[in-house]
Amino acid sequence: MQVRYKVWLEEGEHVFGDGLFSLLREIDRLGSINRAAQSLHMSYRQAWGRVKKAEERLGIDLLVTRTGGEDGGGAELTKEGRELMEKYNLFRREVDKAIKACYQAYFG
Amino acid sequence: MQVRYKVWLEEGEHVFGDGLFSLLREIDRLGSINRAAQSLHMSYRQAWGRVKKAEERLGIDLLVTRTGGEDGGGAELTKEGRELMEKYNLFRREVDKAIKACYQAYFG
Repeated sequence: MQVRYKVWLEEGEHVFGDGLFSLLREIDRLGSINRAAQSLHMSYRQAWGRVKKAEERLGIDLLVTRTGGEDGGGAELTKEGRELMEKYNLFRREVDKAIKACYQAYFG
Repeated sequence: MQVRYKVWLEEGEHVFGDGLFSLLREIDRLGSINRAAQSLHMSYRQAWGRVKKAEERLGIDLLVTRTGGEDGGGAELTKEGRELMEKYNLFRREVDKAIKACYQAYFG
């Protein structure tokens, strides 16, 4: 047997979770919303929509985008976006460790 | 903002979680699968099916049922069922405390 879980942040509605974390990590890695969306098998529209909603709900900009140029534009994390990613990543590791410890204590 | 989560136990498939915990707690409280199902707005068939599946996957009996009699039969937790409920309840409280502490540490 093993423990499984999902964890996310809400403010009335879903604000931030593993899906958005992965999307932003891919955007950071690939420098483009379009390429990140492709790599995660979602549409550009869907990826962009999720980022925009999160930005609205968090009240911060997560991405800076450039349009045009040789590579057809690109996107990168803002300072606030990167800070959120780092915080969320640490939070997730702690949560994972804590839940597994609870599981071990009672069912291990 | 607040943290939200779901946690459950798996063995390849879902084995035990908050839904089953609530169902068994209602059965324990009301002494009947039928009354518990009603109180949780599910069908008898659904309630019974969930308990049976969990029993198979856990390899233990969770309920003892009586048929007939003045009250038309009833159900109660086995010793193993009660032990699982107690363990799961403590596990859930620890998980809740731990996740909220992680949230406070990073986003509080």
